[in-house]
Amino acid sequence: MIKKLVIFGVGLIGGSLALALRQAHYCQQIVGCSRNAEHLQKAVDLGVIDSFTLDPQDAVHDADMVLLAVPMGAMGKLLQQIKPVLPADAILTDAGSTKGSVVAEVEQVFGKDFTRFVPGHPIAGREKSGVEAAIPDLYIKRRVILTPLPHTDADALASVAAMWQVTGAVLEQMPVELHDQVLAATSHLPHVLAFSLVDTLLNLPMREDIFRYAAGGFRDFTRIASSDPVMWRDICLTNKTAIVDMISKLQADLSEFAALMEQQDGDALYERMSRAKQARDSYMAYLENGKPA
Amino acid sequence: MIKKLVIFGVGLIGGSLALALRQAHYCQQIVGCSRNAEHLQKAVDLGVIDSFTLDPQDAVHDADMVLLAVPMGAMGKLLQQIKPVLPADAILTDAGSTKGSVVAEVEQVFGKDFTRFVPGHPIAGREKSGVEAAIPDLYIKRRVILTPLPHTDADALASVAAMWQVTGAVLEQMPVELHDQVLAATSHLPHVLAFSLVDTLLNLPMREDIFRYAAGGFRDFTRIASSDPVMWRDICLTNKTAIVDMISKLQADLSEFAALMEQQDGDALYERMSRAKQARDSYMAYLENGKPA
Repeated sequence: MIKKLVIFGVGLIGGSLALALRQAHYCQQIVGCSRNAEHLQKAVDLGVIDSFTLDPQDAVHDADMVLLAVPMGAMGKLLQQIKPVLPADAILTDAGSTKGSVVAEVEQVFGKDFTRFVPGHPIAGREKSGVEAAIPDLYIKRRVILTPLPHTDADALASVAAMWQVTGAVLEQMPVELHDQVLAATSHLPHVLAFSLVDTLLNLPMREDIFRYAAGGFRDFTRIASSDPVMWRDICLTNKTAIVDMISKLQADLSEFAALMEQQDGDALYERMSRAKQARDSYMAYLENGKPA
Repeated sequence: MIKKLVIFGVGLIGGSLALALRQAHYCQQIVGCSRNAEHLQKAVDLGVIDSFTLDPQDAVHDADMVLLAVPMGAMGKLLQQIKPVLPADAILTDAGSTKGSVVAEVEQVFGKDFTRFVPGHPIAGREKSGVEAAIPDLYIKRRVILTPLPHTDADALASVAAMWQVTGAVLEQMPVELHDQVLAATSHLPHVLAFSLVDTLLNLPMREDIFRYAAGGFRDFTRIASSDPVMWRDICLTNKTAIVDMISKLQADLSEFAALMEQQDGDALYERMSRAKQARDSYMAYLENGKPA
């Protein structure tokens, strides 16, 4: 049970958590805070939060749980604002897509031995964003990854895990660095690729023809290029090292594909594509067997 | 109307055409030919074709329309086999995903002034393949691109166009080279990318974690890596020049993305991603306005 949950950034992610917790009567009070009174009023009207304030210091007063669900570029300033007034027992957690950068920002503001921060990353989303898109079922069977630090308080970790469990999510733990590498590979690289593919096509002389004749594969493949550029800018900036590393690995692999085409090496092309198809098919079978999506 | 249509390769593509034409009573006779009697018998049992033969020369006897729907790597040999017996008035067409290589093979076998060949490419597919997956509706509102040569007979072109129109397809014409460039950009490159992305991930030390934690975007993005490796090997071999060119353009664009991350240039990243998102969203709106998918 949470007495006062404060959610900074009441959009799809924060709003869906609030709805799931309210449905389960898990919080006595949920307070929203951001810089946009209109959005926050809508969140109140939609029954997502109980009340709101535009003042971060006012928000965290008496809070026992504080969730940062703002764009990652906004976290540093927010941490500085709440630092002087955050109750000593309050638990701080976040929903950022990369963890190394948030951990560094919290350390910078709260010190290296701050024990009440539990870094978290709910892996869920919808094509729509904003509090209007929030739904209580968003996290059912979705993974929420927590990346506690060696000095994170066990009770703080347990409280954050318990909160997410209420939403129907599947909890996982891993080290910060592994999280950022795995996400760079499975999420950040595909997004950068989708943006880059569309960008590449936009720069071709026959771009008109290309967009006219694009087939279904292109549509699926570029779906994620319709994602929010603010969020993805921040992810690219904060998980730079892992993403750049993945880009260069992919470029090397693409060069090998191109070389096989140049050499007209059909057997090697077939072998690589078969291996990829097999891995992808196994992955889908694994998902369909009821494992978390 | 077609008296005798011969389909080489009665799989998803050839079989769906046959079903649509039979439904419209557009052919007096549809004969299938391949090297697999069992598949062909299944096509007869499913009502896709009237009869079959394993002998290409026997198949084209008395034919007025001959469709090559075999993997592109099998076209050259087949052309040589049917060359001596193809009726002079028969129209030859194909369903290959690249056109330059088929045109070159037809020229090599039938000569540079052969007027009865109409290169074609139906842009349609399903996740399933084989004659069991054939459906009469496959081509409804789908594009079929014809790439006639300067010396192609007008009546041959009209006959092939009329045949595809019966299926509900939207007919388009473009030069061979433009077709291969446009398809390299919108279909071949995305497929190679999907194969290469999965291949890259398979080579990472944390591959187990990666496949465990892969999110929804990864699933959509790699769907086309489950495509048939034989078909894609052949496409890579036959449209090599255009695909390699697209790979190197994409690699250059990815390097620019990586450089912006290294430089922590959030504004430029945001601008590129926004532009890509906007183009992709416009493309989707265009599709949803009832234009061919």
